[in-house]
Amino acid sequence: MSSLLPSALLSAIDELGRLPGVGARTAERYAYFLLKSDQQTAARLAASIAKLHDSVKTCPVTFAFIDTSEDVSPLYIDPSRNRQQIAVVEGPLDIIPLERTGQYKGTYHVLGGALSPIDGVGPEQLHIAELLGRIKNDNAEEVIIATNASVEGESTAVFLERHIHEAEPTITVTRLARGIPVGVDLEYADQITLTHALEGRRRI
Amino acid sequence: MSSLLPSALLSAIDELGRLPGVGARTAERYAYFLLKSDQQTAARLAASIAKLHDSVKTCPVTFAFIDTSEDVSPLYIDPSRNRQQIAVVEGPLDIIPLERTGQYKGTYHVLGGALSPIDGVGPEQLHIAELLGRIKNDNAEEVIIATNASVEGESTAVFLERHIHEAEPTITVTRLARGIPVGVDLEYADQITLTHALEGRRRI
Repeated sequence: MSSLLPSALLSAIDELGRLPGVGARTAERYAYFLLKSDQQTAARLAASIAKLHDSVKTCPVTFAFIDTSEDVSPLYIDPSRNRQQIAVVEGPLDIIPLERTGQYKGTYHVLGGALSPIDGVGPEQLHIAELLGRIKNDNAEEVIIATNASVEGESTAVFLERHIHEAEPTITVTRLARGIPVGVDLEYADQITLTHALEGRRRI
Repeated sequence: MSSLLPSALLSAIDELGRLPGVGARTAERYAYFLLKSDQQTAARLAASIAKLHDSVKTCPVTFAFIDTSEDVSPLYIDPSRNRQQIAVVEGPLDIIPLERTGQYKGTYHVLGGALSPIDGVGPEQLHIAELLGRIKNDNAEEVIIATNASVEGESTAVFLERHIHEAEPTITVTRLARGIPVGVDLEYADQITLTHALEGRRRI
């Protein structure tokens, strides 16, 4: 196999294959694409990946990704945002879809994952202590739990709700609504979603 | 959106999104993975992509990918390989699955694509003239057309067969067999494949 492809190509296929969900076939396809594109495309991709670690850090308050030149997330220090409302998300990229709604004017707190005993992720591995600290410091009125709708996300939500209420019995803890996505026919909605949609029904 | 994510992360997501079949969501996932991995993983990936263009070139005889330090594909100059047998493939990576069989001891010729008038790919865009030159130079006895089983691959095969026989009426031109893949039940085979399998049936 060693003479089959140039070593530089093999090594690019190998490294691309480390990306999540990328198998050998896909890695080959990416490498082939980069070789076929002009050199600038490959150079720009390489440069952007190379500088990721040195240019991006984690906000010490919200645990969102921020520029290394910044001290705290701009979404946190923005005076137009309400620090008394905290949306709790699993990962730093979960902020994007919530921001895209244009409806949310509170701040964010990134947990850094969801509880998953099987993967060794317990409460200590998540930024829960820091969340409780923020709730106190910012005198928060509402915590919106926006973890994923997976088993781990749901159990994290239940755990957080109990934990937050133990520390702050009067705070409002909410969870994103479960229901039928816009544009989906009733017959395609699964039973569990439909149960949630029934439970969460609203007067019109 | 500008303050939503650090600019270095946005630019990495943007560049990763240029890879074939990679949408915004997947690009975000890749970038997140690279940020979460240790810096070495990102550095190695960046380095391997950065040196692709300078380390890999196209063989002037077979149009396979070769090291820039090589003159001709090692699969072509290998004296144990039969130059009188030429497998014609669409892309340079199509050599890999054929080599993996361990059964083929001839040489390869990469066309650089398949005929596709709708994409502006005519015979001039493919390395067909060079193939005819090789057939003459190497006194080839058999050309195995190993283009893909797509519409473009099939019409390229038909075109090549006519073209080669016009130039060299006595040469053997073969095509990879069509039939039922190993491990696939008859009921899952599509009609066209089954038609090919019937036509190509062999005495046992």
